[in-house]
Amino acid sequence: MLKRYFPILVWSRDYDRETLTSDLIAAVIVTIMLIPQSLAYALLAGLPPEIGLYASIAPLLIYAVFGTSRTLAIGPVAVASLMTAAAVGQLAQQGSPEYLTAAIALAFLSGLMLTVMGLLRLGFLANFLSHPVISGFITASAVIIAMGQMKSLTGIPIKGHNLLEQISSLLESYTAFNWVTAAIGLGTIVFLFWTRKRVKPLLKASGFSDRLADTGAKMAPILSIAVTTLLVFALGLNGHGVAIVGDIPNALPGLAIPTYDPKLWFEIAMPALLISIIGYVETISVAQTLAAKRRQRIDPDQELIGLGTANIGSALSGGFPVTGGFSRSVVNFEAGAQTPAAGAYTAIGIALATVFLTPLLFFLPKATLGATIFVAVLSLVDLKSIRTTFAYSKADFAAMAATILLTLTEGVEFGIMAGVGISLFLHLRRTSKPHYAIVGRVLGTQHFRNILRHAVETDPATLSIRIDESLYFPNARFLEDTINGTLAANRAIKNVVLMCPAVNFIDSSALESLEALNARLADSDVRLHLSEVKGPVMDRLKRSHFLHDLTGNIYLSQNQAFEDLRAS
Amino acid sequence: MLKRYFPILVWSRDYDRETLTSDLIAAVIVTIMLIPQSLAYALLAGLPPEIGLYASIAPLLIYAVFGTSRTLAIGPVAVASLMTAAAVGQLAQQGSPEYLTAAIALAFLSGLMLTVMGLLRLGFLANFLSHPVISGFITASAVIIAMGQMKSLTGIPIKGHNLLEQISSLLESYTAFNWVTAAIGLGTIVFLFWTRKRVKPLLKASGFSDRLADTGAKMAPILSIAVTTLLVFALGLNGHGVAIVGDIPNALPGLAIPTYDPKLWFEIAMPALLISIIGYVETISVAQTLAAKRRQRIDPDQELIGLGTANIGSALSGGFPVTGGFSRSVVNFEAGAQTPAAGAYTAIGIALATVFLTPLLFFLPKATLGATIFVAVLSLVDLKSIRTTFAYSKADFAAMAATILLTLTEGVEFGIMAGVGISLFLHLRRTSKPHYAIVGRVLGTQHFRNILRHAVETDPATLSIRIDESLYFPNARFLEDTINGTLAANRAIKNVVLMCPAVNFIDSSALESLEALNARLADSDVRLHLSEVKGPVMDRLKRSHFLHDLTGNIYLSQNQAFEDLRAS
Repeated sequence: MLKRYFPILVWSRDYDRETLTSDLIAAVIVTIMLIPQSLAYALLAGLPPEIGLYASIAPLLIYAVFGTSRTLAIGPVAVASLMTAAAVGQLAQQGSPEYLTAAIALAFLSGLMLTVMGLLRLGFLANFLSHPVISGFITASAVIIAMGQMKSLTGIPIKGHNLLEQISSLLESYTAFNWVTAAIGLGTIVFLFWTRKRVKPLLKASGFSDRLADTGAKMAPILSIAVTTLLVFALGLNGHGVAIVGDIPNALPGLAIPTYDPKLWFEIAMPALLISIIGYVETISVAQTLAAKRRQRIDPDQELIGLGTANIGSALSGGFPVTGGFSRSVVNFEAGAQTPAAGAYTAIGIALATVFLTPLLFFLPKATLGATIFVAVLSLVDLKSIRTTFAYSKADFAAMAATILLTLTEGVEFGIMAGVGISLFLHLRRTSKPHYAIVGRVLGTQHFRNILRHAVETDPATLSIRIDESLYFPNARFLEDTINGTLAANRAIKNVVLMCPAVNFIDSSALESLEALNARLADSDVRLHLSEVKGPVMDRLKRSHFLHDLTGNIYLSQNQAFEDLRAS
Repeated sequence: MLKRYFPILVWSRDYDRETLTSDLIAAVIVTIMLIPQSLAYALLAGLPPEIGLYASIAPLLIYAVFGTSRTLAIGPVAVASLMTAAAVGQLAQQGSPEYLTAAIALAFLSGLMLTVMGLLRLGFLANFLSHPVISGFITASAVIIAMGQMKSLTGIPIKGHNLLEQISSLLESYTAFNWVTAAIGLGTIVFLFWTRKRVKPLLKASGFSDRLADTGAKMAPILSIAVTTLLVFALGLNGHGVAIVGDIPNALPGLAIPTYDPKLWFEIAMPALLISIIGYVETISVAQTLAAKRRQRIDPDQELIGLGTANIGSALSGGFPVTGGFSRSVVNFEAGAQTPAAGAYTAIGIALATVFLTPLLFFLPKATLGATIFVAVLSLVDLKSIRTTFAYSKADFAAMAATILLTLTEGVEFGIMAGVGISLFLHLRRTSKPHYAIVGRVLGTQHFRNILRHAVETDPATLSIRIDESLYFPNARFLEDTINGTLAANRAIKNVVLMCPAVNFIDSSALESLEALNARLADSDVRLHLSEVKGPVMDRLKRSHFLHDLTGNIYLSQNQAFEDLRAS
């Protein structure tokens, strides 16, 4: 029991020197990767850069205690940061103390929600975000984030949390374009893209091992920070309109008690829920993917608690919402992390950086951080998924396209809610008009299939119909209508067999319909039979009057029904 | 095409003298029944009594043109009137011009919504109200309505749109109890109940035909109106605190142009939608029940247009929301109505009553109308349905109980929305953790069933698993987890057969899961096969890469899979 809620008790028992070495190496690499990301995502959320560092210390320590994934790397991520900016931006002015207060409260409330959902074992709620909706949402968010980076990359004050607002503010203030800033930004982008594609092969060709070459390539962002910071410092570019990060307090975060303000909590409740669910879906996907590669298992409900407590920890140390990051976790995994302790060591690394490194970042141009984000999020745009979804299912594509469009034009919150709503609506519409088939016996077998698709034998006095859906309220009326319609067209039928292999449950609404159908068929001297009713469905039917009133029989298999009714 | 949208073109062609006579007789009976109901339901909605008459003229004429049911009788009904009072009561003071304006706008907007839904063929939306939710909602509404009638029945000013508010206002002002009013109210209730149960047998015993006896019993409300009105007039009871209806304008309604006020429309949009859907569900249920008895068909989408245009007509003639009424339609049916023309004749009857009868109703005590409503709604309380639902399905009962409780305590709008939300939630939770069975061949057959429930033969190297649910986003991850878990426990398995008779569709999310599963099984040298994949599912799979990547085969029947894999 204790082990379930404290997974650290499981893995810490076998912790040896070898594991320690692996974890330490991974921690160093992830720390170097996380520093620029933490600063950049804090800016993306509209917060001072040090908040990003704070959010990369306590949450990692806490996740090491409560998390079940061995390799998940937690911290500020792009999409959650954008959602934070969108939510908090409606309540307070960026840069004001209220803005920071609201961001902290958002992390706290989101953490609370996740933890409670975990304790109530509500992990299944995350399943209601379908792949097309998530994929569309992330693609659209990435576009909004990339567009938002035009501010640090060009000096033009881009505002707004959706593409339309961003474009209109771009057109309004394009005269603020700053050449020096743009040169730094564009230079960094080109450098980062180049290192992504070329440096690893180059290093490998120079004789480095695969892992070392990979690690070398991952150093590019920190290298670009060093170079551009030096450049700004040496040439005094901050005097030429280049925005710099400036003073970052080089102290560890203190205890921040989130304000209990019912009005504020009420206002951020919905954004907190959305950030929680999106963050959880991202976390669980990454964690499951990586766990499967090493044949490890993660516990989806305990992951809710892990992510929840991490967010509460972020809030209590003055940070903002955190999530398991995809690229960061992959780096952690590939760098050889064996246990969540690697995350704890990363936290120590970030804490050291906060104290000792921040003074060196005074001249760091924001354009460099903007370029880091820009390059990172462009890889989130998933055009392939749009193509394959379009080919496979028009309904899924409709949900995806609507999510993308509404996220781009109306913002992240509306976009994701609309996406979930649309996919549920399409699902319900589909089940409300289910597929059905009139079936016959495939020649030479005991197998029954659609008379329109297979060579089958049928009995003219028996209508065998297979409804390809559970019978429940959205389609309760459909069955009645369908059978009535078919019977009206064929007066020779004396038996109707409802073949039920696809009926996984029958709810009260459908039971009433079945009873009505049975009574109406009896009026026309037609008997109603059921075949291949599943165990759990049968158990439930036994608790109603239906089996007693049924004019026909219940057959174990459709073949028995066919033989028996043909003989009678 | 024209005939589809104007059903009058179909039935009017065969209209002969005999049909005319039948329709006229039915119209006279329904008119007599409708007069007290129209006045009473207008008061229930918080409107002047003549508005009830107005709502019983134009809508009936219009439905005769657009409706597909031959016998549906439309007009003000109890539940929609309560919902109108709840919605409009939040916006304006009862008795003020704004109150009437809002009620008219509500009818107009609701009519517009229904008509648009009909044109878009969205009739299936009504299916999302499950029977337990509707039944619970109507039961709770009936209780609230009955409690609200205590005002006219006792003189105590009962306020509020839910039971809690009503009870607290009852306790607050119980001193306003008026003995004379209560005597009239109670007397009428007893008289109405007595006539319901006794008069028909009595009349039949006296030699009247069944139909005439029935019609005689239906006259009770109009008789009680005549008697109590005379009583109040003769004894001057209005001087003793008995509330009377007073002046009713004896003119036909004029054209009322609903105000276009975006703020008002926005505020009533949700109530209008709820009234539309509840009204439509009631209408379609009544219409289908009656149509089935005479083997007629109704068109659910055209019914949306019929009800929608009727409501628009109600608004344009100064009326409030109307619906197809159950008891009224049954009377119309049993009185022998053959076509919607009976409704048009009823409208003429009500118009005549409006002009010639209203002066006679000056002394009509409100207590009599209250008693009429009280008796009518008590028959809506459906305790049997609560019992049978409880026995059959705890989930359905939970949705029903929540709907009843929340309607009683929070009011109609919240109650119905919560009911829909809860039933959808329970449905999705159920499908997200579907039932599955490991299957084997039932001895001596080609039929495959659950190894836990039947005597079956199995092959140790083959795992045959039947998932009893369509594969889609809420359960996409479940399948992977389930199969991985089963395989981890049994290393002898070399083939996994997914038996798919219950899989009615596979969406993009589940397809990704299947692809991941296939790849992961391939890593462990286990082949994945599918059997009994349905035609439409197969058609769709052919549009993806999955069939190409699949390590195993697709078998038409599970038996073929079993034979083939055992032989290999």
